[in-house]
Amino acid sequence: MDAIASYIEAQHARLHEELHALLSLPTVVAHGRAIPETAQFVRHSLEQRGAQVQVIPMPNGGAPLLYAVFGAGQGKRRLLIYDHYDVQPADPEELWQSPPFGPTVRDGKLYARGVADNKGNLMLRIQALEALHAVAGELPCEVAFVIEGEEEIGSPNLPYFTQHYRELLVGEGMLWETGRRDVNDRPEITCGVKGMAYVELVAHGAAYDQHSQFATIVPNPAWRLVWALNTIKGRDGRVQIAGFYDAIRPPTAAEEAALRSMPDTDDALLAELGLPAFLDNLRGMERLHRHLFEPTCNIAGFGAGYTGAGSKTVLPCEARVKLDFRLVPDMSPDVVVQQLRDHLDQHGFSDIEIVAHNGSYPARSALDSRLVQALASAAEAVYHLPPVLAPTMPGTGPMYDLAQQFGIPAAGGAGCGYAGNQIHAPNENIRMDDYWLAMRWMAEFVRHFAA
Amino acid sequence: MDAIASYIEAQHARLHEELHALLSLPTVVAHGRAIPETAQFVRHSLEQRGAQVQVIPMPNGGAPLLYAVFGAGQGKRRLLIYDHYDVQPADPEELWQSPPFGPTVRDGKLYARGVADNKGNLMLRIQALEALHAVAGELPCEVAFVIEGEEEIGSPNLPYFTQHYRELLVGEGMLWETGRRDVNDRPEITCGVKGMAYVELVAHGAAYDQHSQFATIVPNPAWRLVWALNTIKGRDGRVQIAGFYDAIRPPTAAEEAALRSMPDTDDALLAELGLPAFLDNLRGMERLHRHLFEPTCNIAGFGAGYTGAGSKTVLPCEARVKLDFRLVPDMSPDVVVQQLRDHLDQHGFSDIEIVAHNGSYPARSALDSRLVQALASAAEAVYHLPPVLAPTMPGTGPMYDLAQQFGIPAAGGAGCGYAGNQIHAPNENIRMDDYWLAMRWMAEFVRHFAA
Repeated sequence: MDAIASYIEAQHARLHEELHALLSLPTVVAHGRAIPETAQFVRHSLEQRGAQVQVIPMPNGGAPLLYAVFGAGQGKRRLLIYDHYDVQPADPEELWQSPPFGPTVRDGKLYARGVADNKGNLMLRIQALEALHAVAGELPCEVAFVIEGEEEIGSPNLPYFTQHYRELLVGEGMLWETGRRDVNDRPEITCGVKGMAYVELVAHGAAYDQHSQFATIVPNPAWRLVWALNTIKGRDGRVQIAGFYDAIRPPTAAEEAALRSMPDTDDALLAELGLPAFLDNLRGMERLHRHLFEPTCNIAGFGAGYTGAGSKTVLPCEARVKLDFRLVPDMSPDVVVQQLRDHLDQHGFSDIEIVAHNGSYPARSALDSRLVQALASAAEAVYHLPPVLAPTMPGTGPMYDLAQQFGIPAAGGAGCGYAGNQIHAPNENIRMDDYWLAMRWMAEFVRHFAA
Repeated sequence: MDAIASYIEAQHARLHEELHALLSLPTVVAHGRAIPETAQFVRHSLEQRGAQVQVIPMPNGGAPLLYAVFGAGQGKRRLLIYDHYDVQPADPEELWQSPPFGPTVRDGKLYARGVADNKGNLMLRIQALEALHAVAGELPCEVAFVIEGEEEIGSPNLPYFTQHYRELLVGEGMLWETGRRDVNDRPEITCGVKGMAYVELVAHGAAYDQHSQFATIVPNPAWRLVWALNTIKGRDGRVQIAGFYDAIRPPTAAEEAALRSMPDTDDALLAELGLPAFLDNLRGMERLHRHLFEPTCNIAGFGAGYTGAGSKTVLPCEARVKLDFRLVPDMSPDVVVQQLRDHLDQHGFSDIEIVAHNGSYPARSALDSRLVQALASAAEAVYHLPPVLAPTMPGTGPMYDLAQQFGIPAAGGAGCGYAGNQIHAPNENIRMDDYWLAMRWMAEFVRHFAA
């Protein structure tokens, strides 16, 4: 066992306790919960390890961003790291087997909202720097964390940060918040993100909910949304909004090659999802291609009328559907929202209101950068498995805002995720063994990157 | 002022207090709340006025039915009355301006869940018999109340009652639970009900909610329901289930004539609903014809994924829609549910589960019966306005089970409703003046019926 692994093992109890305390904070940014407490907690974790921390207030009372520099002036390179301390809402809470903000270990897994997305990675990366410093006496390069508190609501204030603190975004690479092992437990490195257009469609009817006897003559906003949605995406899964697919840039040869080098995880993923087949019976490369290189139009929520137990005969006066579109390069969230508006108007649904919640641009980074190569060689050293190099994540994040627009490569890796994380769902969890291994991956990565 | 009106006016405070106490009980049968307390309360109100009350237990722990006879053996006729003591759920509770079970008078209106449907009518009819007895020293005929506690969940145990207590359902007419003044304040008499098929459609996806990044490859049950619903009813409002309209019996000449005698209430109803127009811009006779003689297919509730504040990017593992179909003679709820199953199967939606909640047959009664004529002449005597004779209500109730199958005419009237009742919705209310007038209508009606 190497010195870093030994150091980490000796500190398990203390480091685990620190993670537990962070997870106990209900940092649901969508509901404005526990923001100052969590920011203060993370600041303390950083400062007690010698980081210089700036707490940067965000406009309109937004959650503050933490900028923390370790090993200022050391080495010849500079590594940027992006993480976030906020989490998704925990509902439906009744489906949790233990309280979402009462971290619980069962069968070697740690259950808590945010443990996989993103508090686990945030904490293990900070703790990895402690281990690296303890073993080597110093860091091999300067490392700067950008830690925001609004990722789960679409990072509305990051453009403010990138405009006003441009000078802080300097480095030869940015480690992204994400990092995990795939369904075969191979460490995964991801070199891009999808973008996002998140909207709510609202249809209105009578002045207040009606007895459903009036369904003969009173418009039902839930039916309006059903009919409108049916024009937006057909049963073949194809989005029918004019121009929706026009801006898509075909994958590069290198990206296609990376895709082909990815393992066939179809059956393991299906088992994890509890599904007999993917949509359209996609398999192998076709499945991967669809998953990584194509956009989506997802119903994230549909609420109308009475949804409780038993029956109630009501004609609702309002219906709402939340739609999230995942975008690939070079789609733009603003363009998609406008295309959606035009589509609704052209199809006779001018009455349906669009509330645009947030948008974010897609991004992809070079696969042959020092950042990606260091993540790969460090992973191989720790896991003794060839890492998976994914041209992009299917998920979303502000990679364009923080890195791509400044020409900085960004990639995910050195994280504790696995295929059963249930992120954004009840019973979110990590495997504790992964947590300690990812901490070693992180420490090794910084060494390789600095070399 | 006649003797009955004088008696009622002298007793306002006590009678109002009794109504207030009944409305304070949260008798939400869908949630199993306050059933024994309410049954006991009503029993007491009946018995203290000299009724012989049977408390009839229902199978499977259902809410007990009360059967109460006033004036046993008196007069030459027998009047049956059907009411219910249960109410709809109160949610969304946050839209109530005063607590749904904290009855409150504002501007001459009494606000409470159930005040219009049906506790107000139940109480005023009992109180009217007190007035009639007090003034005349006896009742002019025998009057039997059938008071159930499961109307708002579709009267699941009424077939048990009608089978096992057939001998209690004897009379020359049955006064139905409903009764109101129309938008022009004319007293309304209704001679039929629509039937009901209430189902829940359930679509399933992955084993648990997923991060919406998987929308590329994982089926979304909310989209499944959207596509299925779109095949069930089109944008023209026409139900596309094969055979759905086949069993409809055309209205009789007398029913059509009654329709033509109904006042044009379009503008007043639109104002009340807060709508610029009815569906398909229907007006006048066309609107009435659609409303009274045609079936519906209503989305009463749609629940999937995240419907709270802000945004959450989730791919739900389940989606549910509650559909209520209002049926006209001679449609059958069982047939409609089977047609729906066949429709889904034939359109590629075998994966969508149907949970059938409850069903009820439509019914219509003769317009020239003693019952209807007595309601009309009594209304004219009290309100000095020609009553509206409606061939049917657009709403539903177990009129077939309780009356039509035994050849007993049934009709609604002698009730305190008005066009702004907001039944089944937040802020359900009655106008207190209507309550006292309807009590007089009820007393007069019994006199006319017995004559």
